[in-house]
Amino acid sequence: MSRLLDALFTTERMCRIFSDAQAIQRMLDFEAALARAEARVGIIPAGAAEPIAACCRASELDLDAIARAAAAAGNLAIPLVKELTAAVARRDGDAARFVHWGATSQDAIDTGLVLQMRDALDVIESDYARLSTILDELALRECETLLAGRTWLQQALPIPFGVKVAGWLSAVERDRERIARAREHAIALQFGGAVGTLASLRDEGMQVAAALAENLELPLPDIPWHTQRDRLAEVAGALGIAVGTLGKIARDVSLLMQTEIGEAFEPSAPGRGGSSTMPHKRNPVSAASVLATAARVPGLVATMLSAMVQEHERGLGGWHAEWETLPEIFRLAHGALSQVMQVVSALELDRDRMRANLDITRGLLAAEGIALALGETLGKQQAHRIVEDASREAVRSRRPLREVLAARAEVRDRLGESELDRLFDPRNAMGASQQWIHRVREARSR
Amino acid sequence: MSRLLDALFTTERMCRIFSDAQAIQRMLDFEAALARAEARVGIIPAGAAEPIAACCRASELDLDAIARAAAAAGNLAIPLVKELTAAVARRDGDAARFVHWGATSQDAIDTGLVLQMRDALDVIESDYARLSTILDELALRECETLLAGRTWLQQALPIPFGVKVAGWLSAVERDRERIARAREHAIALQFGGAVGTLASLRDEGMQVAAALAENLELPLPDIPWHTQRDRLAEVAGALGIAVGTLGKIARDVSLLMQTEIGEAFEPSAPGRGGSSTMPHKRNPVSAASVLATAARVPGLVATMLSAMVQEHERGLGGWHAEWETLPEIFRLAHGALSQVMQVVSALELDRDRMRANLDITRGLLAAEGIALALGETLGKQQAHRIVEDASREAVRSRRPLREVLAARAEVRDRLGESELDRLFDPRNAMGASQQWIHRVREARSR
Amino acid sequence: MSRLLDALFTTERMCRIFSDAQAIQRMLDFEAALARAEARVGIIPAGAAEPIAACCRASELDLDAIARAAAAAGNLAIPLVKELTAAVARRDGDAARFVHWGATSQDAIDTGLVLQMRDALDVIESDYARLSTILDELALRECETLLAGRTWLQQALPIPFGVKVAGWLSAVERDRERIARAREHAIALQFGGAVGTLASLRDEGMQVAAALAENLELPLPDIPWHTQRDRLAEVAGALGIAVGTLGKIARDVSLLMQTEIGEAFEPSAPGRGGSSTMPHKRNPVSAASVLATAARVPGLVATMLSAMVQEHERGLGGWHAEWETLPEIFRLAHGALSQVMQVVSALELDRDRMRANLDITRGLLAAEGIALALGETLGKQQAHRIVEDASREAVRSRRPLREVLAARAEVRDRLGESELDRLFDPRNAMGASQQWIHRVREARSR
Amino acid sequence: MSRLLDALFTTERMCRIFSDAQAIQRMLDFEAALARAEARVGIIPAGAAEPIAACCRASELDLDAIARAAAAAGNLAIPLVKELTAAVARRDGDAARFVHWGATSQDAIDTGLVLQMRDALDVIESDYARLSTILDELALRECETLLAGRTWLQQALPIPFGVKVAGWLSAVERDRERIARAREHAIALQFGGAVGTLASLRDEGMQVAAALAENLELPLPDIPWHTQRDRLAEVAGALGIAVGTLGKIARDVSLLMQTEIGEAFEPSAPGRGGSSTMPHKRNPVSAASVLATAARVPGLVATMLSAMVQEHERGLGGWHAEWETLPEIFRLAHGALSQVMQVVSALELDRDRMRANLDITRGLLAAEGIALALGETLGKQQAHRIVEDASREAVRSRRPLREVLAARAEVRDRLGESELDRLFDPRNAMGASQQWIHRVREARSR
Repeated sequence: MSRLLDALFTTERMCRIFSDAQAIQRMLDFEAALARAEARVGIIPAGAAEPIAACCRASELDLDAIARAAAAAGNLAIPLVKELTAAVARRDGDAARFVHWGATSQDAIDTGLVLQMRDALDVIESDYARLSTILDELALRECETLLAGRTWLQQALPIPFGVKVAGWLSAVERDRERIARAREHAIALQFGGAVGTLASLRDEGMQVAAALAENLELPLPDIPWHTQRDRLAEVAGALGIAVGTLGKIARDVSLLMQTEIGEAFEPSAPGRGGSSTMPHKRNPVSAASVLATAARVPGLVATMLSAMVQEHERGLGGWHAEWETLPEIFRLAHGALSQVMQVVSALELDRDRMRANLDITRGLLAAEGIALALGETLGKQQAHRIVEDASREAVRSRRPLREVLAARAEVRDRLGESELDRLFDPRNAMGASQQWIHRVREARSR
Repeated sequence: MSRLLDALFTTERMCRIFSDAQAIQRMLDFEAALARAEARVGIIPAGAAEPIAACCRASELDLDAIARAAAAAGNLAIPLVKELTAAVARRDGDAARFVHWGATSQDAIDTGLVLQMRDALDVIESDYARLSTILDELALRECETLLAGRTWLQQALPIPFGVKVAGWLSAVERDRERIARAREHAIALQFGGAVGTLASLRDEGMQVAAALAENLELPLPDIPWHTQRDRLAEVAGALGIAVGTLGKIARDVSLLMQTEIGEAFEPSAPGRGGSSTMPHKRNPVSAASVLATAARVPGLVATMLSAMVQEHERGLGGWHAEWETLPEIFRLAHGALSQVMQVVSALELDRDRMRANLDITRGLLAAEGIALALGETLGKQQAHRIVEDASREAVRSRRPLREVLAARAEVRDRLGESELDRLFDPRNAMGASQQWIHRVREARSR
Repeated sequence: MSRLLDALFTTERMCRIFSDAQAIQRMLDFEAALARAEARVGIIPAGAAEPIAACCRASELDLDAIARAAAAAGNLAIPLVKELTAAVARRDGDAARFVHWGATSQDAIDTGLVLQMRDALDVIESDYARLSTILDELALRECETLLAGRTWLQQALPIPFGVKVAGWLSAVERDRERIARAREHAIALQFGGAVGTLASLRDEGMQVAAALAENLELPLPDIPWHTQRDRLAEVAGALGIAVGTLGKIARDVSLLMQTEIGEAFEPSAPGRGGSSTMPHKRNPVSAASVLATAARVPGLVATMLSAMVQEHERGLGGWHAEWETLPEIFRLAHGALSQVMQVVSALELDRDRMRANLDITRGLLAAEGIALALGETLGKQQAHRIVEDASREAVRSRRPLREVLAARAEVRDRLGESELDRLFDPRNAMGASQQWIHRVREARSR
Repeated sequence: MSRLLDALFTTERMCRIFSDAQAIQRMLDFEAALARAEARVGIIPAGAAEPIAACCRASELDLDAIARAAAAAGNLAIPLVKELTAAVARRDGDAARFVHWGATSQDAIDTGLVLQMRDALDVIESDYARLSTILDELALRECETLLAGRTWLQQALPIPFGVKVAGWLSAVERDRERIARAREHAIALQFGGAVGTLASLRDEGMQVAAALAENLELPLPDIPWHTQRDRLAEVAGALGIAVGTLGKIARDVSLLMQTEIGEAFEPSAPGRGGSSTMPHKRNPVSAASVLATAARVPGLVATMLSAMVQEHERGLGGWHAEWETLPEIFRLAHGALSQVMQVVSALELDRDRMRANLDITRGLLAAEGIALALGETLGKQQAHRIVEDASREAVRSRRPLREVLAARAEVRDRLGESELDRLFDPRNAMGASQQWIHRVREARSR
């Protein structure tokens, strides 16, 4: 192994699916399925298919030779077909004549990629199902755990931690839906021959295409998509958006982990997040990895989009730009997904610290509620002014807001002790939180 | 008017929908609907709603003052609410106390944007329906018009122009589907108050939210989405992919318009595409505009994606990055759509030139077919070598490929005159083209 | 005025320089200078220059008509020249024949942009000089103000605030240098005629070019750069990098402003950073604006880079993609610069809070120093383990690290009271800070 | 080897410089130099340096173990230092205590990257010198070879091929200058310890830093740049711009290679650019590779820019985003450079075809010159109208423009036969071409 940073940014499963060997194998799977389809339709001799299929094993081809020859050929399929033909010829000279019959390089490369993506989406979708369950349970479990809601990085009003998690979950559910829909478009056979017309198969092109699709368990598209790359761009976009959501979760966690806040933590483990120079630190390692991915994937998605402008019946440069970019998006997206799963499945919460932090402003978080309560009789703007003024005084004098307010007649006349009790108790600030959580969980279970 | 390049890159309709006045008006629509909803639920006095709603007219507010104050406030809603409250106060001092009751700035800004997007998507979806019809008819009309299919910018095999158009249409249909799906997620109410809990509405938050959604004819989301921006990123992505398809069409047209190819042209019109120095030129003006958009939108989509990583309950910078970016994507996307509609609805084809260009290589386009035909008896690789060799000789000697091939015994022995006639006739190279066109048109009509 | 968000994201000066009127005026400046140069060289009649120059006033042309016609023409120069010619004709029919003589649209458009950029760079460079001075003074003034240095968003070791500022300043100095160098390449005449050869000026092209450059006080480049856009990409890149530095400053300030940290604040002002619902909040409004810009500009720079791949002697789409993108980069960059200047010139520091926050971990910030001190006799790894263990115990038991350490024999045997005093005093943790600050300030003054 | 597409998109030399082993080795070079510097200054025992340095060999460390541990540690330096310490301990237990003394992970990682970049820039700069020479010779050799200058992808006026090449060369020279300047900023020591203050080295930090810089032959920066990433962003930007220029060259070549144009070709070689299905094709393989890179690098540069917004004294995610992105930019940029060198050093020109293509419009390329000549007496606009009209008629009737013009009295009266001869001879359309070429070549030789 050792691509040095793979363990940090991606996963073993994605590494395997998008490995060199697997990239070649999936193209060979196309070639084997093609030979069988053509033999079935009668385009090539019945006896040619199995000798071809038998040679379609990446482990028996010289990958380095294929890689070297790709530079002159301009793609991997040309040298691959050459190597494969030679291998078949050693086994059965007649069959060798029918390797890659009627197909073009892009048919093999694109379909090979589609097969890799299918594997990758299986993994990603199944992991997302688990993440969804984890978040669902977390939202429920912490539905009454109060912490400061923060806007502009400043404390605003209390919220239950569960409503924060429900927000993450709501986005994750839409991310899953988008990935599932992208799959419908992207997982499709590519087979059109040199210019998309299957001309070399004469009248039997469609029949071969159908049989090939069946062999590979892929849908037959309405038309080849050699230079219509929206299918791939959609997958890139869906994963890119999902990464954005994961980045948001990672940012929240990393901000909560700050020394001065200390409300939530990535799970600890030996060797995890240690600093080489500061023995006491527990670094948000997963968050760093996910945030890095969230900084990298947008540029990769932009490449997929700008690469869509492809020429005529085969792109010059645009197509080639996809080859390493799309797998990289998959690799990074699954890495980020795995990191977030790891984090949220064992997120450590410091509920005492959450509660203590709610008091850090000496009651200022209650200010909005008080302004609203006063506003009912005083008008919003005047109430706002009074509370703003009292808040400033409280900050200046380091006194509790309640004390400052109670000293003012226009407040005392309108809000009694028990009303102030209610207004300063964060438990009364939940508003519609439970209903939101419920709605997200219910939408999910549909 | 006069944003100088608007007429080139966008459309009047998008300019109107995303104008300053309309941005303000849509926020005011939110405020009016909010007051009515709260009056209905009984949160604010019944008599407060109409005075508020009556003042919710952009034409009566000082937009310049709002714009100036936005710098200190950090967003438009704060000064807007202030201006609105003052206006209401002039009409009804009591009602003024209930402006924007229980809402947060982002509720007004996001919902205002959603209302603008709904208008914009109506326009875009309806224009896309027309584009789809135009392409459908064009694909059918030109289903037998032969031109050179080109790969790597080189002539490969003949294809019907209709199959090229069907490829465009197939992508356009998926683009429409993606936009429609993005609409489902993106067109949703934003209403959560300061931190998303609607805390200031106590137990009636959900009721108000439901009434507000109803007033605006917007779906009520499962939970507020203040820092879950996937809904907007999805719209950006769907439009970004659609622009990629439009860019592909523009590139094809611009390449076909080249002086040396001259097979298709943007419609001509007085003053259109003229050069300031070269009186004979007819420049691909629409293509240039669309290609410019296809170069610009990917970066804007990337911004929407990287801006998704927002903090806690309100983003700091990420949210603000969306404000001009998403409208710009809409403006550019509709501009490109309009340009492409203009081009394809009156595309000028030079069918004679298409046919003449097919002969430019003196028969080389038939090479693949001949190699395949020879391959049936000679084996693919040997056939390939023979035809490659003959092709080189034909190029070197500037003789027709057919003549060179006919001089070779190994060819003459295998392919007779009538077989060569067939192989050199581009009309016999359509392969599955008609079936592909049919499949695309049928999928569309579903 | 009122592009609604201009006051938040850009500045009046940039709005003026890149206004519609100014864009037209700068092209007219080119046309006037061209006429005079050609009259001087004798290419056009001596009497033709002044009537042309006299009409080169944007305020007398119909900008809306030019904007409308740009859609069909594909650029602004074609209708501009037409309007200008008509205006000259009304004044002097003979002179009208010599408007725009020998030039191509792109000559006027590019040179016009260069003139706008020169104005903009004057403003930006002068503001950067002020920012540099502000930071220099701030670094000096706060060179002994201790706060927690933070890595991975966690407290690490104490640093002087001045060293943080010196880091900002060091980058700002390099940003200034890059902008100055980019200016050398980007501020250059564009004048080549239809295909860059000045063919229509026959043998006098170079003479006219030199005279024109002199008139406009622009360097004459080695060769026209119609499709060599590195000059513009360099400006975009230099500004993009400068925005990155500004974003870093904004992020630092916004993190320090967090309720739970509260060590530094954007300057306060009436109406500034107030929340519409939470009267006590002081939002990092400038930081939000700068961070938004730092999220937007990278995508715009990417557009400038991908637009460089232009065709032959005039780009198709790539050139057009620059027109709104590069001015947008200038507008946003200067907006961010102005915001940061505003922030750092009156940054409010809470030195008490900085000091108090240093104690929040009950001594853990001293851990590295202690580990190193112990390491001298115990070896780094074992010392690291001891301190790590003690740190964990201190966290668990909420006791000061010093107390925990003092209870352990292997520490007590090696570190006496006065040594511990020294190790736990943050003032002794400055290391090379003063030297770094000095080096940065000195490098600046060179 | 076999990262499958490396041979197509990058070079062996870049693969080696940015290999896993070399990444580790360059960090070890830092560690060795650090130990020696500290021994020299007397911070660690004199005898500790050589045992440490002796173990600083990547080939003796377990790279896979380091890679695996990086996931938990969050970077490579932590497990590297651990492995290194263990290795030293096996050799000399005392020395092991002083490995990585006073440094932080980022010191090793950043300096290691700087050392890799220095190697890479050596290669890139030397190759660019060769490219410059090749283009210089090509511009001179082809300074009178006429072909059609093309704007908007349409033939405009004739230009010498040499002037096209001089345009490329002019940009390449600026690209070289930018890379050289970026080198000045980017090749600098990183050494600041945990928070940049070198606190753990007490008063000797600066001395150690200077000695370390000397050992590594790196400049000592004014201040550590842990979270000031403009140095790296500048390198990324300079390479990104250079790639834009290379992309422009590749696009020109690929357009000239089109079947219907056929004026210039990538050098041919066995197996190069062959199509798997069309034996006659010679695909622009290098152009495809370079254009792919030009589509990919802008997104990577954008990532480097947006990653600049790093937190406090160590970035969380932004820093990590650089690790694979910057090496990828180097790899791709050198790949594109190598491809372009290969292409232009043996570019095949078909001068006959260039000449023949100049006649394809039956004289329309002369239209501008004729309009200008007529304009001298008729006025530009009327002359323009006459020539435009004649051009249209020539196109319509497929007659030579000269014939059509000669039939018109207003032309015949003004332009005689010899004048028309001159105007229709492309050799007279060179204008200032030779002077431009000369200027570019001269600027280069300075």
